Amino acid sequence: MPPEPPEPPHLLDEPHHDGSPLHLSDDAPALEDVVTVRVRTSAAPGRAPEAIWLRTTYDAEPVFHGCAETARDEHVVWWEGRLPVHNPVTHYRFLLSFDGGARQEWLTAAGVVPHDPPDAHDFVVTTHEPAPAWGREAIVYQVFPDRFARSAAADERPVPPWAVPAAWDDTVVFEGSDPRTPLQYFGGDLDGLVEHLDHLDRVGATVLYTTPVFPGESNHRYNASTFDGVDPLLGGDEAYARLAQAVHARGWRLLGDLTTNHTGDTHEWFRTAREGGPTRTWYHLRDDGGYETWMGHHTLPKLNLADPGLRAAMVEGHESVVARWLRPPFEVDGWRIDVANMTGRLGALDVNHDVARAVRATATAERPDAWVIGEHNHDASGDVDGDGWHGTMNYSGFSWPVWSWLRDPDSPARAFGRPLPVAVRPGGLVVRTLREWAARYGFRATAQSWSILGSHDSARIRTLTGSGPRQRVAAGLQFTLPGVPMVFAGDELGLEGVLGEDSRRPMPWHRPETWDLATLDAYAALATARREHPALVWGGLRWALAEDDAIAFLREHPSGTLLVLARRAPGEAVDLPAGPLGASAWEPVLGTEATPAPLDAVDGVVTLPAGGVGVSVWRASESEAWEVSSADR
Amino acid sequence: MPPEPPEPPHLLDEPHHDGSPLHLSDDAPALEDVVTVRVRTSAAPGRAPEAIWLRTTYDAEPVFHGCAETARDEHVVWWEGRLPVHNPVTHYRFLLSFDGGARQEWLTAAGVVPHDPPDAHDFVVTTHEPAPAWGREAIVYQVFPDRFARSAAADERPVPPWAVPAAWDDTVVFEGSDPRTPLQYFGGDLDGLVEHLDHLDRVGATVLYTTPVFPGESNHRYNASTFDGVDPLLGGDEAYARLAQAVHARGWRLLGDLTTNHTGDTHEWFRTAREGGPTRTWYHLRDDGGYETWMGHHTLPKLNLADPGLRAAMVEGHESVVARWLRPPFEVDGWRIDVANMTGRLGALDVNHDVARAVRATATAERPDAWVIGEHNHDASGDVDGDGWHGTMNYSGFSWPVWSWLRDPDSPARAFGRPLPVAVRPGGLVVRTLREWAARYGFRATAQSWSILGSHDSARIRTLTGSGPRQRVAAGLQFTLPGVPMVFAGDELGLEGVLGEDSRRPMPWHRPETWDLATLDAYAALATARREHPALVWGGLRWALAEDDAIAFLREHPSGTLLVLARRAPGEAVDLPAGPLGASAWEPVLGTEATPAPLDAVDGVVTLPAGGVGVSVWRASESEAWEVSSADR
Repeated sequence: MPPEPPEPPHLLDEPHHDGSPLHLSDDAPALEDVVTVRVRTSAAPGRAPEAIWLRTTYDAEPVFHGCAETARDEHVVWWEGRLPVHNPVTHYRFLLSFDGGARQEWLTAAGVVPHDPPDAHDFVVTTHEPAPAWGREAIVYQVFPDRFARSAAADERPVPPWAVPAAWDDTVVFEGSDPRTPLQYFGGDLDGLVEHLDHLDRVGATVLYTTPVFPGESNHRYNASTFDGVDPLLGGDEAYARLAQAVHARGWRLLGDLTTNHTGDTHEWFRTAREGGPTRTWYHLRDDGGYETWMGHHTLPKLNLADPGLRAAMVEGHESVVARWLRPPFEVDGWRIDVANMTGRLGALDVNHDVARAVRATATAERPDAWVIGEHNHDASGDVDGDGWHGTMNYSGFSWPVWSWLRDPDSPARAFGRPLPVAVRPGGLVVRTLREWAARYGFRATAQSWSILGSHDSARIRTLTGSGPRQRVAAGLQFTLPGVPMVFAGDELGLEGVLGEDSRRPMPWHRPETWDLATLDAYAALATARREHPALVWGGLRWALAEDDAIAFLREHPSGTLLVLARRAPGEAVDLPAGPLGASAWEPVLGTEATPAPLDAVDGVVTLPAGGVGVSVWRASESEAWEVSSADR
Repeated sequence: MPPEPPEPPHLLDEPHHDGSPLHLSDDAPALEDVVTVRVRTSAAPGRAPEAIWLRTTYDAEPVFHGCAETARDEHVVWWEGRLPVHNPVTHYRFLLSFDGGARQEWLTAAGVVPHDPPDAHDFVVTTHEPAPAWGREAIVYQVFPDRFARSAAADERPVPPWAVPAAWDDTVVFEGSDPRTPLQYFGGDLDGLVEHLDHLDRVGATVLYTTPVFPGESNHRYNASTFDGVDPLLGGDEAYARLAQAVHARGWRLLGDLTTNHTGDTHEWFRTAREGGPTRTWYHLRDDGGYETWMGHHTLPKLNLADPGLRAAMVEGHESVVARWLRPPFEVDGWRIDVANMTGRLGALDVNHDVARAVRATATAERPDAWVIGEHNHDASGDVDGDGWHGTMNYSGFSWPVWSWLRDPDSPARAFGRPLPVAVRPGGLVVRTLREWAARYGFRATAQSWSILGSHDSARIRTLTGSGPRQRVAAGLQFTLPGVPMVFAGDELGLEGVLGEDSRRPMPWHRPETWDLATLDAYAALATARREHPALVWGGLRWALAEDDAIAFLREHPSGTLLVLARRAPGEAVDLPAGPLGASAWEPVLGTEATPAPLDAVDGVVTLPAGGVGVSVWRASESEAWEVSSADR
């Protein structure tokens, strides 16, 4: 019998690898390149492997490559292997040998496991182009135009026949299946948005993403009646051009919102289709006069993206909808694709990846640095390998685990897409969840995806967490974990909402006394930190602590490493070993409640201070002794 | 904060669902069918969920359906849900609610988890046709023709120029890169095989699978020089026809072995290609005169299955190689496809699924009950969803976990495809490994795959385990866990071999005193049990025990349930709760060392007896009280 493995190591003693520059020499190599991969392990007896092999697959055949020790001190050993990038999406993991091979462990993207698991949690490196840097570095601000701001011109516009007019202070109707819910019309418009760009600047936004601006007979406009122009109720094409110009003048970017899965039943294509016209094959019309829809809503007929004509009109080529809006006068910088998970899928038909690739290729042909994010309300694992959507709206891998750590058990917030509220879970399970989802998506795709605390489709984070300090913990995780923060307009003011429709409350511009300034300041400070510290955008992710009520992690990068501590409840001080942590002295960067004190190791121990609910961030004062060759950075 | 979850339940108290008839009303439904899924849970306080939801995806959108309680006694609650089969491969899992939703768990195919994991371990149901029943019910016997048996005619055949002749008792050469390894020619032939079919009958075989019979300038013949005929060294077409006839006359089936990934460099197609002939696009020839190969072996040029001409010649249509051999005079019943994991894959090219679908469609067009198994030396998760290979040679999901439980640490057996021998691991980790792989492949695909203890490519199981009793434990698991047993000829006699080439030792027909008759009898008894107890083929799999040195499981089926106990070392008696186990009285079926005594519950406890190394199997004397509606069976 082999010797028993030692007690599970401290998280900081776990072997580690991720997709950041300290560990992977190139996260977008060319096919047949050989990239360098590095593993950090403990140097402690019983924790230091005797040997490490890099295992990859070559056309689905497992292949092993030895790794070499390249650096060592009393705490840490660094290993290096050479990974041939033979397939566009190349999988790999590491085999660690202890006790002469009697004990073998695998280092996977979800952590270390003591058995031989399937490849589901393998690391991946992809040859497909990454998201544009402006996207990965972005802070995205989401605006739902009907509820954001009214310009003076809005008062002059007649209310359309379908709408139920509402004054800005009216209560949003959302209970049950109230027919007024999609029709309640507050009249926000694009010039109103232009007038408030200074507010976006205050939050640190660099990308403005609005939900659809196409006309549609609803306040959400996801039931487009045409893709050829901007809703006159929003100010029309001219107003959108003014918005685009104003956004670009600030050096920011503008993202559109396009539903490729369906249109409104008032869409010109659908009307023509119903009349038996040339677009009749663009939908899934049945002989009985019925048609496929989005989730049974007859106002939302589903598009048939297997049809070449629709493909050309919608997603493929210079004249497609995807392409046209990226050109003057709007020069939209990319798209958020609505219902991206379902688009092109219907029963036995599945052209989803073709559509994703087409959208991406069409957009980047128009603007080489276009950014394409697919909405995926579930498991996007198979859909973000790199040739389609650059990333997803990361509900499953970010929102739900963060919600499950921070939900107030008495919150009236309702579930999104599930029959029960997200369960309240301890830090250990939450970290496990974050790690598994990040492993499934891959490090780069996770970092390019949107870390959201909510959206126009969900409860507001403030309602979920139930307090300012707890909301600021959520925001702290949103801005410091890998992923692009997307802030739903109003979260930064502490707006509330128990579910998606309720969350679409108008911005209280005229009631600044209701604004939660502590939360607004926290968002601003977090945005500043993200701008000033490349580690928050480009750094690795190494977990340091996963207690029930406190979690901590490192964002490691050659330019400097940050340490983040989050507490959902007041807690005692926690000792971390300085060597495995990687630095003995840490300077404060920010705190969501108060700036923390510096940290200095005593007898090789860094003590995270006792404290209340909040997030604290420090920066390592010195670098570790090991070196990254400059050629690899 | 929610209440803490109770201590982890006994394995038998875990909620359970699998792809067998007690839990899934139809494992091959048509698209848009609605199937019934059943969950068995504990009835104990704190273990019984208050509610269960079935979660599936509809075109990748998560959807929840409530489940209803349908039966209950003091130990067990049965729940039922209705699953719409909207996609050809439909995923599902179950959400279990406790404490008013404060505690939520997921029942996945790999077991119960307390967090929200990705879909990687979801249950699946597929609309694609299953493997033929004769395949799933089979016991496959693998023969490597050069080493199985010589007929008298073999003495008359001249040794070919490429071969290194060997006498039947000569030692197999395999060390290092000895050039004689692939050339050592023992001269076994097909008429020799015909002469020994009674031996296959003794082992209980119902399917004969031989490694290739095409000519090739090696003893393994995986480097085919043509697919148009049988190697004259084996007796040619006539001998193969005699073999096929003899096999079919016994009511058995015959499987061929076809390499779609590459040919030999002596193949007529390759010669023509090198001369610039019409097959030049059938390979990956480079301008510099080089060409792609299998893993760098220049004698094995890789085929280009993106080429329509090759597709038609090899895998598609009535005139393809795949089709022709399924017709008279051979009427082969299906194929084992060599290197199926790599076939059609090369860097950015990946037509693997197209090839798998083509092989399957071509074979079933020729013979509706054809069986197609793909060799996959790794993770076949994405390749066995049901429209291509019916199953795989299950090294990763069966061989390696069983090896890791039973390997003698001092065994000279060498690794297959990894730089270290498989680590010796305790029962808990082994069960976890088996569960994860089965979850990734799906219940049906696992049951249709080959459970192998070794092959002509690996060490022999006897050498790995180091003793007869331990080998018989391996065989016991091979015949009682889900999956089709494939026995590599000679295992049943206790033959040895430290790696693949060494394992190709000639069968010792003339030295019966060397046969391990206890092992031969155990294989025969296990084969009989598999034939007599449908639960071993069609039953579910519920784990009952996972100790370091003892594991136990149930194979549950409407026709009767079996209980299997395997010990890798002598151990004490173990108490199991009779209620959760499902029966109080158990009759012996077999033991690999000695027939066990009957089991009868005392005070609600069934005691598995203390014992030595071996496998014991019992059959439940009575059925549980719950009913399965006959319409669903």
